[in-house]
Amino acid sequence: MSEITKSPTIIGDALPNIPWEDRPAGSNDPVWRCSQNPIIDWNPIPSGARAYNSAVVPFGDGFVGVFRIDDKSGRAGLHFGKSQDALNWELEDELIDWVDEKGNPNPNSYAYDPRVVKIEDTYYITWCDDLKGASIGLGYTKDFKTFVKSENPLMPFNRNGVLFPRKIGGEYVLLSRPSDSAHTPFGDIFLSHSPDMVYWGKHRHVMSAGGSGWWQGVKIGAGPIPIETKEGWLMLYHGVSTTCSGFVYSIGAAILDLENPTKVLYRTRGYILTPEKPYETTGFVPNVAFPCATLYDAPSGKIAIYYGAADTYCAVAFTQVDELIEYIKNDSEV
Amino acid sequence: MSEITKSPTIIGDALPNIPWEDRPAGSNDPVWRCSQNPIIDWNPIPSGARAYNSAVVPFGDGFVGVFRIDDKSGRAGLHFGKSQDALNWELEDELIDWVDEKGNPNPNSYAYDPRVVKIEDTYYITWCDDLKGASIGLGYTKDFKTFVKSENPLMPFNRNGVLFPRKIGGEYVLLSRPSDSAHTPFGDIFLSHSPDMVYWGKHRHVMSAGGSGWWQGVKIGAGPIPIETKEGWLMLYHGVSTTCSGFVYSIGAAILDLENPTKVLYRTRGYILTPEKPYETTGFVPNVAFPCATLYDAPSGKIAIYYGAADTYCAVAFTQVDELIEYIKNDSEV
Amino acid sequence: MSEITKSPTIIGDALPNIPWEDRPAGSNDPVWRCSQNPIIDWNPIPSGARAYNSAVVPFGDGFVGVFRIDDKSGRAGLHFGKSQDALNWELEDELIDWVDEKGNPNPNSYAYDPRVVKIEDTYYITWCDDLKGASIGLGYTKDFKTFVKSENPLMPFNRNGVLFPRKIGGEYVLLSRPSDSAHTPFGDIFLSHSPDMVYWGKHRHVMSAGGSGWWQGVKIGAGPIPIETKEGWLMLYHGVSTTCSGFVYSIGAAILDLENPTKVLYRTRGYILTPEKPYETTGFVPNVAFPCATLYDAPSGKIAIYYGAADTYCAVAFTQVDELIEYIKNDSEV
Amino acid sequence: MSEITKSPTIIGDALPNIPWEDRPAGSNDPVWRCSQNPIIDWNPIPSGARAYNSAVVPFGDGFVGVFRIDDKSGRAGLHFGKSQDALNWELEDELIDWVDEKGNPNPNSYAYDPRVVKIEDTYYITWCDDLKGASIGLGYTKDFKTFVKSENPLMPFNRNGVLFPRKIGGEYVLLSRPSDSAHTPFGDIFLSHSPDMVYWGKHRHVMSAGGSGWWQGVKIGAGPIPIETKEGWLMLYHGVSTTCSGFVYSIGAAILDLENPTKVLYRTRGYILTPEKPYETTGFVPNVAFPCATLYDAPSGKIAIYYGAADTYCAVAFTQVDELIEYIKNDSEV
Amino acid sequence: MSEITKSPTIIGDALPNIPWEDRPAGSNDPVWRCSQNPIIDWNPIPSGARAYNSAVVPFGDGFVGVFRIDDKSGRAGLHFGKSQDALNWELEDELIDWVDEKGNPNPNSYAYDPRVVKIEDTYYITWCDDLKGASIGLGYTKDFKTFVKSENPLMPFNRNGVLFPRKIGGEYVLLSRPSDSAHTPFGDIFLSHSPDMVYWGKHRHVMSAGGSGWWQGVKIGAGPIPIETKEGWLMLYHGVSTTCSGFVYSIGAAILDLENPTKVLYRTRGYILTPEKPYETTGFVPNVAFPCATLYDAPSGKIAIYYGAADTYCAVAFTQVDELIEYIKNDSEV
Amino acid sequence: MSEITKSPTIIGDALPNIPWEDRPAGSNDPVWRCSQNPIIDWNPIPSGARAYNSAVVPFGDGFVGVFRIDDKSGRAGLHFGKSQDALNWELEDELIDWVDEKGNPNPNSYAYDPRVVKIEDTYYITWCDDLKGASIGLGYTKDFKTFVKSENPLMPFNRNGVLFPRKIGGEYVLLSRPSDSAHTPFGDIFLSHSPDMVYWGKHRHVMSAGGSGWWQGVKIGAGPIPIETKEGWLMLYHGVSTTCSGFVYSIGAAILDLENPTKVLYRTRGYILTPEKPYETTGFVPNVAFPCATLYDAPSGKIAIYYGAADTYCAVAFTQVDELIEYIKNDSEV
Repeated sequence: MSEITKSPTIIGDALPNIPWEDRPAGSNDPVWRCSQNPIIDWNPIPSGARAYNSAVVPFGDGFVGVFRIDDKSGRAGLHFGKSQDALNWELEDELIDWVDEKGNPNPNSYAYDPRVVKIEDTYYITWCDDLKGASIGLGYTKDFKTFVKSENPLMPFNRNGVLFPRKIGGEYVLLSRPSDSAHTPFGDIFLSHSPDMVYWGKHRHVMSAGGSGWWQGVKIGAGPIPIETKEGWLMLYHGVSTTCSGFVYSIGAAILDLENPTKVLYRTRGYILTPEKPYETTGFVPNVAFPCATLYDAPSGKIAIYYGAADTYCAVAFTQVDELIEYIKNDSEV
Repeated sequence: MSEITKSPTIIGDALPNIPWEDRPAGSNDPVWRCSQNPIIDWNPIPSGARAYNSAVVPFGDGFVGVFRIDDKSGRAGLHFGKSQDALNWELEDELIDWVDEKGNPNPNSYAYDPRVVKIEDTYYITWCDDLKGASIGLGYTKDFKTFVKSENPLMPFNRNGVLFPRKIGGEYVLLSRPSDSAHTPFGDIFLSHSPDMVYWGKHRHVMSAGGSGWWQGVKIGAGPIPIETKEGWLMLYHGVSTTCSGFVYSIGAAILDLENPTKVLYRTRGYILTPEKPYETTGFVPNVAFPCATLYDAPSGKIAIYYGAADTYCAVAFTQVDELIEYIKNDSEV
Repeated sequence: MSEITKSPTIIGDALPNIPWEDRPAGSNDPVWRCSQNPIIDWNPIPSGARAYNSAVVPFGDGFVGVFRIDDKSGRAGLHFGKSQDALNWELEDELIDWVDEKGNPNPNSYAYDPRVVKIEDTYYITWCDDLKGASIGLGYTKDFKTFVKSENPLMPFNRNGVLFPRKIGGEYVLLSRPSDSAHTPFGDIFLSHSPDMVYWGKHRHVMSAGGSGWWQGVKIGAGPIPIETKEGWLMLYHGVSTTCSGFVYSIGAAILDLENPTKVLYRTRGYILTPEKPYETTGFVPNVAFPCATLYDAPSGKIAIYYGAADTYCAVAFTQVDELIEYIKNDSEV
Repeated sequence: MSEITKSPTIIGDALPNIPWEDRPAGSNDPVWRCSQNPIIDWNPIPSGARAYNSAVVPFGDGFVGVFRIDDKSGRAGLHFGKSQDALNWELEDELIDWVDEKGNPNPNSYAYDPRVVKIEDTYYITWCDDLKGASIGLGYTKDFKTFVKSENPLMPFNRNGVLFPRKIGGEYVLLSRPSDSAHTPFGDIFLSHSPDMVYWGKHRHVMSAGGSGWWQGVKIGAGPIPIETKEGWLMLYHGVSTTCSGFVYSIGAAILDLENPTKVLYRTRGYILTPEKPYETTGFVPNVAFPCATLYDAPSGKIAIYYGAADTYCAVAFTQVDELIEYIKNDSEV
Repeated sequence: MSEITKSPTIIGDALPNIPWEDRPAGSNDPVWRCSQNPIIDWNPIPSGARAYNSAVVPFGDGFVGVFRIDDKSGRAGLHFGKSQDALNWELEDELIDWVDEKGNPNPNSYAYDPRVVKIEDTYYITWCDDLKGASIGLGYTKDFKTFVKSENPLMPFNRNGVLFPRKIGGEYVLLSRPSDSAHTPFGDIFLSHSPDMVYWGKHRHVMSAGGSGWWQGVKIGAGPIPIETKEGWLMLYHGVSTTCSGFVYSIGAAILDLENPTKVLYRTRGYILTPEKPYETTGFVPNVAFPCATLYDAPSGKIAIYYGAADTYCAVAFTQVDELIEYIKNDSEV
Repeated sequence: MSEITKSPTIIGDALPNIPWEDRPAGSNDPVWRCSQNPIIDWNPIPSGARAYNSAVVPFGDGFVGVFRIDDKSGRAGLHFGKSQDALNWELEDELIDWVDEKGNPNPNSYAYDPRVVKIEDTYYITWCDDLKGASIGLGYTKDFKTFVKSENPLMPFNRNGVLFPRKIGGEYVLLSRPSDSAHTPFGDIFLSHSPDMVYWGKHRHVMSAGGSGWWQGVKIGAGPIPIETKEGWLMLYHGVSTTCSGFVYSIGAAILDLENPTKVLYRTRGYILTPEKPYETTGFVPNVAFPCATLYDAPSGKIAIYYGAADTYCAVAFTQVDELIEYIKNDSEV
């Protein structure tokens, strides 16, 4: 293939300084783990027990992130972090200090599983918030110093709210997973539309748990911000199966139509990563791999996937966009 | 009190032809049953097994209604009915024929527990709809001949969507009860705002199940369209307790602030009606009294409450607004 | 239609003395209740609390039956009964005295929901038996004096074993409903084959709970012995739905291919009888109509259906075969 | 049998004015219902919805009782009542006003299922109380005007505390039923000893749910105060079975050794009364017969049993001690 | 003991090339682990995630096996494998290609937990199959090239079907464990008889979960093909206990009467192997040791036990027949 | 601070030979693990599989303990052990041989989670015993040779009985945790009083599960014998949270009023130790740290905490009383 005529598959910016390791020799896996895993271990800050299920974005000449850290009482909260290499993170011991539109304090009772997306000049953050029950929290920042908490976009009970990185059809689009108030044993991915990030409607079903495979038979939920590619939106997601010892969370991938993302073009029948390593199979919750963010470099197609492991650790895996899309198409069941 | 200077408590129209019976002699109950109950019995139409949990409104010189009728396969659907006296109903055997905005067929897979409200010149209907799970359905008609089904205002899982009969603060306001996908064992009343009946946001918690009484300890849900009064919005609602043989549904009442209906001014600690009669304690689901509509006459303050009984029958009870409001205030626990 | 050329739809004997009442004037129902219901009330014998879910057959110049009677400890057992008119029954206070092939006592720990079928010169009885768990019991008699208990045909957990009244393809065929060990919340109808009533194999799925109707959404189970007709095997069965107060058992009907009864030709989308009367909606278990037997007269097509009501009473309903088959075809969903 | 030489079976006083009806002609039942049942109907007092599961004793020249009445919020409380004939009751609208040993107010958060026993010159009351969970409440009165609430004798979770009417072996003895915090699906009868009604120990198991009958397979609990007879303590109790629509509560009987009441001499394999009448099979909780008290006349052996019906009504049944004891012995399974 | 007069305890062939390690010095355990465990690790084939719960037999001059391998969608299937030393396995990436008796394709929707037994000149394979629910699958091969799938011997729901290696009393005998449709929380071992491997009957209970030990309190299921010995059938089986984190699967042993295998002669009160090693306590399902096969050498009495570990790995343990039988007898509780 | 004037915080004896390691450099944790952990591994005695949740006390010039050891059938029992250094333990293979007050054998059916306390000259042992359900066992010894089993102090269902080391207000005081009969999903700490260790009363609630932290949201239970300090009773306890894979047991600390121990002065909002190490996160029950005993040296304030790990191992952690109390006060939420 001629490099000259090749335009990148990912529609996005160059970000050559993301973490990267080549695929291990002899491997045919679509995704491979970072050799430095876990990149964040037990007790990452004085007040915190476990950092996991967290979101990172490029910012300035380095990287920043919004991290889920459970404090030593077990309560989940959001913390700011920064890094030059996106592997070694400096995490703040204090919770993010949310304010309302007027700048008054506007704290969460708890907050977990954040995602961060830049739309135009604003970084929007979504997370699992408490609106008398698990629901989608929404906030934004422009500088990662002042964080404004907005209205909850959807009614409880809902989790795994993930925004698309641009308007589609002139509207903001939000993926989410309606649930119940506990360890929900069901769950499909839906999406909603908004003209203004305040009022939401035109709710649509995107894709269901289940299918011929068992790894995603119980529930599924959107993961990182979808990546815009020439083939469609590349959406990594988590799927859950149940064993006689509880849930197992694995990672899958789908491609959604660019202009109508309720249309699933391809979807992996199998997982692309499942808990196998000790930092994934043991910890506070055994057998969890839960992706919340990616960093990618459009020209090379390199993608670093950030996922929580065992509700205890932050971990990273790698893939290349063209190889991953080919893999998805070959393993697809829609 | 001088009749001359008394302005009606209910802010609304005269409707002197609603069904009415005076309070039985010797009774101090806030609500009393119609002597013709049940007004609709088993097998009300050839295709239907049970009509209950239904909504009626004045229309023309008589009354019309949207009725939940479970067909003989047990599936719930909505049927149109009309009546001169609001007690003897002529029900259509066919389901209501929903269309979309363009007039194309737009059927429900199932539909139940309708409410109907006139806002300006349009009759809006809400019900429990199937959006890949129980959720709020929304539609409208102007003539009870053409019924247009609109977008679902909220994400699943949700039931008991009830619109306020006018805009508040310039926005439409919708009560609802987030739930799970089955016989939900929890549930509070929330409300949401919309500028246009399409996009909804600013979701707020209104009131919780529980309190010192047990009849509403499991869950609560809004009932008929709230009645605007000088004291606030008069909201009848259902409350559920659980016994070793299942749920019991009773009727309670609350008064919400007129301009900020998330503010509960008064709320009955006890029920105002609970299943006691054979048509309430036996049937398809024993021990259910589930209010979905009222008819009222503003000048006299007479109110006829329409409630489903035992998931089998339509029944009516009566109250007078001033006496009911006094009762609510005296028994209030907020 | 010329009576002269009409051959009966039911392939069977004349039995003109079965109970019968004409369809009530104005009714279009496929099945109508006996005006003497319940034909057996509380405490039918000194030792027994409730007789229900029982099987009757013509015998000699009258009728005999095997009755499920729960004794006053609540334990279910089988009792013999006889009647001249099949409505007024003389029930034995003692349990049926099972013996093995050698004539030695062979008692059950419990036994319930019997069916009786005459194949050639032998009356076979199936019931729910205890093989370290609910399973199909099988026995036979030729004279209703000596009752021989045979091997259990199938492994636990299974209920609602119903034999076809003749060999099909040279083999005995047994309908059954695999279940779990308790109040099973699922269940489909299967069938099994046997050359000799001892060894069984070639197990096949016949039909599933569910479909577009809700009355049979939880589980289904075969009811009376299928009736051979020119249109196929007429199989009445029970279907179960669940409410927030427990299960509701209704009666449906299907027609199976005569030579390949795993092939469902027609099946009612709706029930043909559901609990509506006080003896069906209240009792030991509210809302149960559970059919276990029919008596029919081939020339006239009259069918009397025997069903248990509320796990407390024996009741009878009537239908006519041609009208029922037409109804099934019109309401069919396969 | 010569009347002259016969000494009464019951060791107790004459109380010839208790309610009584002879056994209905033709009946062989050990217990028969009062023709005036239910003796207390829905809404027995202005503040109360349902009076049931209540305890009565002779007092002065008439009768008094402690009644469980659920108020119109569904919350259970204890009310005082009095009667001349023990059938027509005058119930106080106010809750019993508990005080502590010093006379200070000492209210319950809730209270239900009372029993009352006279030991020496004091009337002791036990009930289900709230000690951060269901537990046994204990109080006393001498005049039914001042009611003193004592220490809870046992730890939660426990219900159905029933005192013996005299010390045994020099100690007070309390029957109870350890449970869980909800609609407990298990439960045996235990007893405990106390020298002083404050400290309790020497806890012993008395008898288990289950046995060959099914009516008492889920749980059992002591009912009225045991009656001292020449044959032993006559203990009526409730037994519970479970159906697909919930629990069924019936009444059984046992005879315990006079000096060692952990020794069960006889116990009915079957129930002696089970819900059959509409006031027992329908109401707030269908299918409940729950005995809490007896009145008896030692010379004649007449016993009036007070039981709650359907968690809604008070009802009465009759038996004669010698006939009942003979019945128990004949039907016994220990 | 004189070697000359000693005849082997195992009634079977010499198979001196099975894997073997002597008992570790100082150990008194009845069973000891292979130092090469796990012999098959994560991702054993390109399409497969985990190989475990698998069956091996001698074939030709080496060994073959039928392996449960869950593919990367989590779905379980059967794969053929071969080995010279029975420790290093060459596994086929493709599923076994089942055909019917006529050679037409006859695929499974899923298949797991195989056992393989040679009876006369045929290798029979049993597994957990899908007959509209978990049930016993049955097939055979003579050459491990053509695999014929036969009729399902038993009705769902059933798992852990294990054939005896010869006819007993002229009939084939099949062990099995009736279950429910999910992670069954109960289960006993039964057996069934067949004259022809098509029709099955004379179902008998063999042994129950429970006893005085807790490791097998929830359920038990037959493991490898029983080994014929002079003392009876040596049956290894799995037993399950439940903790607050799920099930724990351990291995026990019993000896059944040779001619009447429903007669349990001895049965270990304790386990003979329980998960202790990291490959047993962590993985897809923590704490599972599930035996499916043995290889044994009759002259020496050496036995290699093949068991699945953590639903992730294949592992091997060793024992010697005389020492194991002595251990079973000493620890027996029947 | 002047060493001369400082009196020890702990009111107790010097015990300079307890195990001890200084806090690791750089650590700020209130508690740190012993470098020799786990101090007792799998299969600690020939008959035993796992020793954990055990109690140790100084005795003579060394240490003794009562150990929970699950035998190889999984059944829990109590074993005596002794040690010179309290780290290397010599455990008896036989169960403790309980006798009654007369010296007759008085065995337990099972026994687990012992605590041991010296009051005056007697060592009292409490454990979870079987009184027809989980309840508190109580016994005593003076010489660790003769062990007398006393009356059960409380009714079932109860666990985690822990005695205070001296009378308070002239009475013995017993902490306990009322529960249900299985893996109880709730539980608070209560206490009871006794004048004589036979009869118990004046039951009081001490503290609840829950609070703003999640680690103790499901249930809590007292751990080691409370340590008397100048600040109050230092009570270590376990708290439980639930994940989608089961329960997680962590260790917290509270300070109770010396004369009124129902008064909680301080209580840690967070845990002081949670499972992080492989011997805590994997084993028979993953993620359990369950403290049952301490050894302490009053002059230095050194405390060694003995805790069970993963229901498999014995482990030790260290703290210093003044530092711990300061930590508790700083992190307190009451």
